[in-house]
Amino acid sequence: MLQPGVWGVVATPFTGSTFDVDEQSLARLVEHYERAGVTGLTVLGVFGEAAQLSSEERRTVLETVADATRLPLVVGATSLGTAPVVEEVRLAQEVAGDRLAGAMVQVNSANPHVLAGHLRAVHEATGAGLVVQDYPLVSGVAIGADALAAALRGLEFVVAVKAEAPPTPVAVATLTAALDVPVFGGLGGLGLLDELACGAAGAMTGFSFPEGLIACVGAWREGGYDAAREAWLPYLPLVNFEQQARVALAIRKECLRQRGLFLESGVRPPAASLPESLHEQLKRHLTAVR
Amino acid sequence: MLQPGVWGVVATPFTGSTFDVDEQSLARLVEHYERAGVTGLTVLGVFGEAAQLSSEERRTVLETVADATRLPLVVGATSLGTAPVVEEVRLAQEVAGDRLAGAMVQVNSANPHVLAGHLRAVHEATGAGLVVQDYPLVSGVAIGADALAAALRGLEFVVAVKAEAPPTPVAVATLTAALDVPVFGGLGGLGLLDELACGAAGAMTGFSFPEGLIACVGAWREGGYDAAREAWLPYLPLVNFEQQARVALAIRKECLRQRGLFLESGVRPPAASLPESLHEQLKRHLTAVR
Amino acid sequence: MLQPGVWGVVATPFTGSTFDVDEQSLARLVEHYERAGVTGLTVLGVFGEAAQLSSEERRTVLETVADATRLPLVVGATSLGTAPVVEEVRLAQEVAGDRLAGAMVQVNSANPHVLAGHLRAVHEATGAGLVVQDYPLVSGVAIGADALAAALRGLEFVVAVKAEAPPTPVAVATLTAALDVPVFGGLGGLGLLDELACGAAGAMTGFSFPEGLIACVGAWREGGYDAAREAWLPYLPLVNFEQQARVALAIRKECLRQRGLFLESGVRPPAASLPESLHEQLKRHLTAVR
Amino acid sequence: MLQPGVWGVVATPFTGSTFDVDEQSLARLVEHYERAGVTGLTVLGVFGEAAQLSSEERRTVLETVADATRLPLVVGATSLGTAPVVEEVRLAQEVAGDRLAGAMVQVNSANPHVLAGHLRAVHEATGAGLVVQDYPLVSGVAIGADALAAALRGLEFVVAVKAEAPPTPVAVATLTAALDVPVFGGLGGLGLLDELACGAAGAMTGFSFPEGLIACVGAWREGGYDAAREAWLPYLPLVNFEQQARVALAIRKECLRQRGLFLESGVRPPAASLPESLHEQLKRHLTAVR
Repeated sequence: MLQPGVWGVVATPFTGSTFDVDEQSLARLVEHYERAGVTGLTVLGVFGEAAQLSSEERRTVLETVADATRLPLVVGATSLGTAPVVEEVRLAQEVAGDRLAGAMVQVNSANPHVLAGHLRAVHEATGAGLVVQDYPLVSGVAIGADALAAALRGLEFVVAVKAEAPPTPVAVATLTAALDVPVFGGLGGLGLLDELACGAAGAMTGFSFPEGLIACVGAWREGGYDAAREAWLPYLPLVNFEQQARVALAIRKECLRQRGLFLESGVRPPAASLPESLHEQLKRHLTAVR
Repeated sequence: MLQPGVWGVVATPFTGSTFDVDEQSLARLVEHYERAGVTGLTVLGVFGEAAQLSSEERRTVLETVADATRLPLVVGATSLGTAPVVEEVRLAQEVAGDRLAGAMVQVNSANPHVLAGHLRAVHEATGAGLVVQDYPLVSGVAIGADALAAALRGLEFVVAVKAEAPPTPVAVATLTAALDVPVFGGLGGLGLLDELACGAAGAMTGFSFPEGLIACVGAWREGGYDAAREAWLPYLPLVNFEQQARVALAIRKECLRQRGLFLESGVRPPAASLPESLHEQLKRHLTAVR
Repeated sequence: MLQPGVWGVVATPFTGSTFDVDEQSLARLVEHYERAGVTGLTVLGVFGEAAQLSSEERRTVLETVADATRLPLVVGATSLGTAPVVEEVRLAQEVAGDRLAGAMVQVNSANPHVLAGHLRAVHEATGAGLVVQDYPLVSGVAIGADALAAALRGLEFVVAVKAEAPPTPVAVATLTAALDVPVFGGLGGLGLLDELACGAAGAMTGFSFPEGLIACVGAWREGGYDAAREAWLPYLPLVNFEQQARVALAIRKECLRQRGLFLESGVRPPAASLPESLHEQLKRHLTAVR
Repeated sequence: MLQPGVWGVVATPFTGSTFDVDEQSLARLVEHYERAGVTGLTVLGVFGEAAQLSSEERRTVLETVADATRLPLVVGATSLGTAPVVEEVRLAQEVAGDRLAGAMVQVNSANPHVLAGHLRAVHEATGAGLVVQDYPLVSGVAIGADALAAALRGLEFVVAVKAEAPPTPVAVATLTAALDVPVFGGLGGLGLLDELACGAAGAMTGFSFPEGLIACVGAWREGGYDAAREAWLPYLPLVNFEQQARVALAIRKECLRQRGLFLESGVRPPAASLPESLHEQLKRHLTAVR
């Protein structure tokens, strides 16, 4: 099972007009995450722009992260089909070795039986523990929490679920009641307080201030709602700002740049770049959080 | 033009297993809004469950609101077609008379020319000033802020825009730069700070604590970001909790019930009722805000 | 139960730049349908542009149709909410009287229990027999044939299902196996041969040559696949031409105009008008069918 | 520029419970296509289940096809991001060499400028001529024919467009009027007659009877509408049967099996297998066409 806590989702920094992978900035981000005290890292997820990377670049990103930290790693698979997912998981195993805490696989069917078959096939081909990501906005598949629970029941190789189908707190409650598997919230922390209240094991997301996620999750464990709320409040305006549809990635990367972690904040097209109209407010939010 | 500030969107309380309109609770909510200091009220919007009301019930709701307050009113139209919208606007005019600050009409085409024709036809048939609501989740129409600005340019009878197509702060910036019309954020206040920073004239939404919206908008005018942030922070966890996909309406009505404004919190099917798993957290949020 | 056969869906002809309802053309279409030998007529459906009509216009359309024929009528409801559907059904009852063979209600929830509750409530309030229309493209609700069958089981007041969620032949097979209710195909006859083979009771759609639908359904009954195929072949190119996304309505109305049934072929915006590029081919198709 | 005519889209046959690529059946299909007289072949498209293949399997499929025929090849790319598309195109170049008539790239942005940048980057990195596929159902991107024409204007390395955004005849007309590039219809031939009438250079699709596509396109050239219609009529019921949402792939592969081209007709999950209820009708259609 995946350890509870905060799993930092690693963004991929690029450099220059050709958007080459910037390995130095990537290592800097990873080291920052480790210093901040995350439980582990999630690499090649949606916010790592994995769908925009060639297989060679994916390997580079994985190697850079694996070299820069000793933290356990969750590695995402971009494809929805069984065979290409197996291929992606094997690359993760090859590079991460026993540091691979789980391969993250997306829900690829609304039919519990079909989904279970997919997960079983990936596991049997690779032996990897699987983190199941339910993110309909990206996968295009809407399964519902009850059907997801039905699909995962009895799959002992599932080591965690990443619940990103709103309303996520309700999904977390359903999944944790039905399964003995840790469930993590994502979506930039938008519903973190409520996901924790509904039984989430923590957060697995890429908010630009992982310190906030860690403070909130830690406070929840020790002081419950009131403590978590107090720890989380200062970050919440930035969370909402960052988690805006279509521009979330561009905002986050610019925040990481202004924090000194990334050299540049470009996102690969066709993703949207940062709208001019958000620049000033981004600075205000950062000033307030620092 | 619509006055800047906070326009409270009025929910429709029901009673009993047949979900009859509860006029007393409705009047109580309206009076609460007025005491809280809203600029005006928006009736028969999406969160007023207008699409679930018969035309007779719509009249009842309008009359009850008009009787309970002297505030200016924006009245929503549910239909997307010109002829039925005209019919709805005429009912609003008949009941609200010169209290009708604007008839709220949804974007019904992604083609600026077609949308402008629709709005012009509605205005010509009724003489009403129009609030244009861009809410793709409900209308099913995604126009984009640039095309919306193009559609509305020169339509002097448009008195406001309600921008609910994320990323809303970017849309607010685009619309306020292109048009001399006040633009309001909605979506329960999820992006209120950022919408204000991008030029919003205020908020038009149904958050269960309008006091918070009013405090934030007022603070923004007098003290800018820092003041608005401070005023808004205590409410933000509840805002995020309330604005959850599919269950937002049920949460909000239960908050209004627990505030003593509504007798019951039922929503008409097929809308989802409040999941059991959210009850406890709802109470925590309310306790923290009070 | 609805009689098997072909139920013609009635388009609404308009006249002039204001798109007024053209009652004479409407009556002409109805009379043509009756002469062609349809089993009954479906009024105020999606292709009757019911969502674009005011309630007064809906009444006019209903009255015109009821005056022009003695055929049984199915009358569509546009709303998805229970209360406004009840209101629409009552209007249908008032105008059509005992000629109302069924009120057509759309699937408004993917949850079988919620859908059954909606249908039961509409029936209890009105006493009307219901035709259930499963048309996700219009309703925005995707229920699946199994769940639809589960919802309708035991609802003795359901007199027919209109199956318009592709793949429709598979849906027809599922529904006819599970329910003792006639199931009709729609979608302009695109899958008519296959729907009949899977157990459909006929077609309920608005193809501009109802003669073809009638010939095909009749041939199926008497001679099975080979006969139906032979009867249907000459119409099939026009069927595919007519059933094009977004422009289907404009094509169909122009076909009806060129057949001499409608005076004009305009559709109310925001629906698309007939693209110039299709004019010539439309004529070719009509020439070939005549 | 791609040669006008019929480009056969190659399905990928599988064998056994593990759905291994069946190279013999694949070669048999390719040889059948060549004997039938297609202009060229399209490999690794959507209906080749490319998204379900590992990169090794993609290479195997490509090599098998290249070995089995001397026809020119269009090779599809599954990814939407520039870097992984470049990687896929390079594999196609490596295997197909100068037989590569074009690399087929999907529309990945509704913004003409962003799309043009993507295509230009792919071309500059590979030197390949590009076939642009506009298939919103698969890509999730709806650009519209006017914006697509604007994106492609001046891109001299674009060798063809595959227009699969309904209404496709209207799109074909718009694109051929704006660009000097051959435009092909797809979608199993559902709109073939109308696409040809609107200027299509032919069809690029995977209908199980390519003989029918070839007969229709040939007849169109020599005898116009009447001849094409006569040639196409016998196939049209099967075309409509085959092109059903969600089950199209399973139907087509079973048709290929019953024609003796494939050994087995399995599709890789999560795609749906052939519903039992369609078996009998499939046989009727095949009997009628033979």
